Amino acid sequence: MNDNLVPPAAIGMQITDVDTPALLLNLDVFENNRIKLKKQLTETKTNFRPHSKSHKCPSIAKLQLEDGAIGICCQKVSEAEIMSKAGIKNILISNQIVGPTKIQRLVKLSKSASILVCVDNKENINQINNYAKMFDTRIGVLVELDVGTNRCGVVGEFEVLKLVKLISSHSNLDFIGIQAYQGKAQHVREYNARKSLVENASQAVKRALDLLRENDFSCKVVSGGGTGTFNFEVESEVFNEVQPGSYVFMDGDYGRNLDAAGETIDLFGQSLFLLTTVMSLPSDSRAVVDVGLKSVAVDSGLPDVCLKGVRYVSASDEHGVLEIPRLIDLKLGDKIKLIPGHCDPTVNLHDWIVGYRDDKVELVWDIAARGAFF
Amino acid sequence: MNDNLVPPAAIGMQITDVDTPALLLNLDVFENNRIKLKKQLTETKTNFRPHSKSHKCPSIAKLQLEDGAIGICCQKVSEAEIMSKAGIKNILISNQIVGPTKIQRLVKLSKSASILVCVDNKENINQINNYAKMFDTRIGVLVELDVGTNRCGVVGEFEVLKLVKLISSHSNLDFIGIQAYQGKAQHVREYNARKSLVENASQAVKRALDLLRENDFSCKVVSGGGTGTFNFEVESEVFNEVQPGSYVFMDGDYGRNLDAAGETIDLFGQSLFLLTTVMSLPSDSRAVVDVGLKSVAVDSGLPDVCLKGVRYVSASDEHGVLEIPRLIDLKLGDKIKLIPGHCDPTVNLHDWIVGYRDDKVELVWDIAARGAFF
Repeated sequence: MNDNLVPPAAIGMQITDVDTPALLLNLDVFENNRIKLKKQLTETKTNFRPHSKSHKCPSIAKLQLEDGAIGICCQKVSEAEIMSKAGIKNILISNQIVGPTKIQRLVKLSKSASILVCVDNKENINQINNYAKMFDTRIGVLVELDVGTNRCGVVGEFEVLKLVKLISSHSNLDFIGIQAYQGKAQHVREYNARKSLVENASQAVKRALDLLRENDFSCKVVSGGGTGTFNFEVESEVFNEVQPGSYVFMDGDYGRNLDAAGETIDLFGQSLFLLTTVMSLPSDSRAVVDVGLKSVAVDSGLPDVCLKGVRYVSASDEHGVLEIPRLIDLKLGDKIKLIPGHCDPTVNLHDWIVGYRDDKVELVWDIAARGAFF
Repeated sequence: MNDNLVPPAAIGMQITDVDTPALLLNLDVFENNRIKLKKQLTETKTNFRPHSKSHKCPSIAKLQLEDGAIGICCQKVSEAEIMSKAGIKNILISNQIVGPTKIQRLVKLSKSASILVCVDNKENINQINNYAKMFDTRIGVLVELDVGTNRCGVVGEFEVLKLVKLISSHSNLDFIGIQAYQGKAQHVREYNARKSLVENASQAVKRALDLLRENDFSCKVVSGGGTGTFNFEVESEVFNEVQPGSYVFMDGDYGRNLDAAGETIDLFGQSLFLLTTVMSLPSDSRAVVDVGLKSVAVDSGLPDVCLKGVRYVSASDEHGVLEIPRLIDLKLGDKIKLIPGHCDPTVNLHDWIVGYRDDKVELVWDIAARGAFF
């Protein structure tokens, strides 16, 4: 939170009085998304470890634990520190923690919380063990398997085995399992194409599990899956933990994924909006609003406008230009809801999230891990 | 500043020890950029009012005042509040301030600082006057003229005259001048194309000035121009104030503008970098670094890599994938400098800027107006 700033809303306010730009959360839809996910998972044996990088908000993480989450995922050690300080003590850092500064923070944190971390590199494994020894603590590690995202992770079961052997030879590390997140599959529109990417991932994980078993290594956790694919990971009988994060909010990009019938998926509803103000009406076909690049991420496209026939057509630092049909009667100061193209980096631009019900502000949550990219 | 976070650097540290992602400022290049701008402006009669939306940092704004700036520009009332609190008392809010909440903050601020604001709408003018009267203060206003950016502003001299007449009829407003910022021209690569857009803008301003003069209105300030064009505004003999902001830092996008000879402009040097760490080396042609969408803006393209032959090819939330030539010997934990595509929204993602000289950290500045988009 930037303590130079005043929050955009107070509890009890009408949402039309909220200052803009503001992140709005429709609490009915948000709660319904949580219920729907819970329902999808309670009939399975798959654990639920939601990713907090989407919301960066301890208040939401705590609700997810109430929903039955066994812990949370963080992407960064600074994110995990903030969540731990807020009382969340079971955290998988679903990422590599590299270099002396960050590794020291990791091992220190592991003394007050149960911390797991991903690895994909020998020297990194050795370094984490050395610092864990120095600080007299133990760290649980997951080997990251690259299942087609082409980002971090080792490729193939033999590389997994090599790292597991190394981990097991170290005094202060515990081999816990495998992370196999198919990041690229999350946003593949077509149902069967998405499903087939996760099936390939599951097969790669299965090969690794078989090889580890042959070598007498047991693998407690197999973690992966996001909002776009977690149902496939659940069905796989290979994964026993899924990591969806965006399902609480949704966004323009996730909203374009299709189900088996070729229809837009409607499992989760859009709960996250950006409230913006019409700040200029230069012509009868153009309105300018106060949400630009500093309050909405545009990497997955420009935001959608919650007004029929109106399009957000260009973003500059603090301006957004709307193309409006001539019949629409917009007034200066009107407040309009936008749907961000990509929720994670949009949330990270804000210090507060304003929860509302029946157009009235019910809560203002601090996005405590905003900017926690260390 | 997020008080949940620890700054990435301490004074005296080697830059290779700075935690990442971090915004690095090469102080020699930064100072040289300031000297170069000063040199360009001292021989002219044009006032210099740098835009603080680029740096959001009171420490930098104060140095610009030492360089001869007559004040600063802010884009938002919350930005102006933070700058005023830091002691900067001459501020043009180069934007429309709309709605009761923001207008009240504007008039309150005008009681402790000299505040100018842009207008392009009758009701907005009436509202600002009403609140100024209510709070017993005066506000100086500039009419924004749209000179081809197709964003805010009125089109044509007759619309300017109408608004100036309205402003002059109000008890608590002072008509100060015209803002005519050709935003789109800033990033037009070709020198003559860029020049010609500003010449058109100057002619539109001149027509407005002539009409105002015929109607006995005097226009004290004509403000506009950014890093990409300010030299043309200076030459115009129409503008008497320029607003460059990015010149202190530069970025990948500004670095692609061409001079009259068709060469890349080298007036200002690249002083702003993003320090990133190699966090995974999955293959001999790929490295993964820890700068992604949450620490670099990608609206003007992916960042450039300060290592010959290396390209940043894809960004996800907290990962960046580098394509590396097979001959380059990168090690896990190596720190690499990146050049952001667009400096303004990148700076806004960070809480600190780390200034260095001879590879040693000399200062850590608070980006106090980070997130000040209200």
